[in-house]
Amino acid sequence: SEHWSPRLAAECNGQAVKLAKVEGEFVWHRHEDADELFFVRSGQLRVEFRDEPDAVLDEGELLVVPRGVEHRPVAESEAEILLFEPTGSRNTGHVETDRTETDIERVD
Amino acid sequence: SEHWSPRLAAECNGQAVKLAKVEGEFVWHRHEDADELFFVRSGQLRVEFRDEPDAVLDEGELLVVPRGVEHRPVAESEAEILLFEPTGSRNTGHVETDRTETDIERVD
Repeated sequence: SEHWSPRLAAECNGQAVKLAKVEGEFVWHRHEDADELFFVRSGQLRVEFRDEPDAVLDEGELLVVPRGVEHRPVAESEAEILLFEPTGSRNTGHVETDRTETDIERVD
Repeated sequence: SEHWSPRLAAECNGQAVKLAKVEGEFVWHRHEDADELFFVRSGQLRVEFRDEPDAVLDEGELLVVPRGVEHRPVAESEAEILLFEPTGSRNTGHVETDRTETDIERVD
């Protein structure tokens, strides 16, 4: 039930599939060496970029943020999302904040 | 609108994200060197195995079929699924049939 705290749902070819409930603004960050895929399972997710218009993802929609691109995910109200990224990827990318999580819990 | 004919939706860290509409039985096959992830976007998908009970996936559910494991996806009625697998992966795995597709079309 905690927001912005992904859980590991599955692994596939070295990539992690993570589930997260999100609400509000996350931190600006980038992943230097990894693309990150966002898929909206329920609700709506906005992904903000520094130099480009926001992407708004409705239920069932997906977006890949290429490696190195700074972004900030924002959910105006609670949403459930799937993330696909390398198993070792850190949720806050190059930034270390109180939201950084190093251990990820597995769900069934 | 064609069934069992995946389209490339995105690429992420060398993995392809494919979208497919499915209905009826697909062919028994396995991918020797690749795990395959199934995610149900709408409808229901059953994944049959040779030596294990079927897995039944409802909307929003996912399953990873490990490399080397023979399986047959079946949809009793039309379903929309997402697949995650290496970009070069062949839809019918080790089997060549009239359903084998070598070129994959990109969607936006």
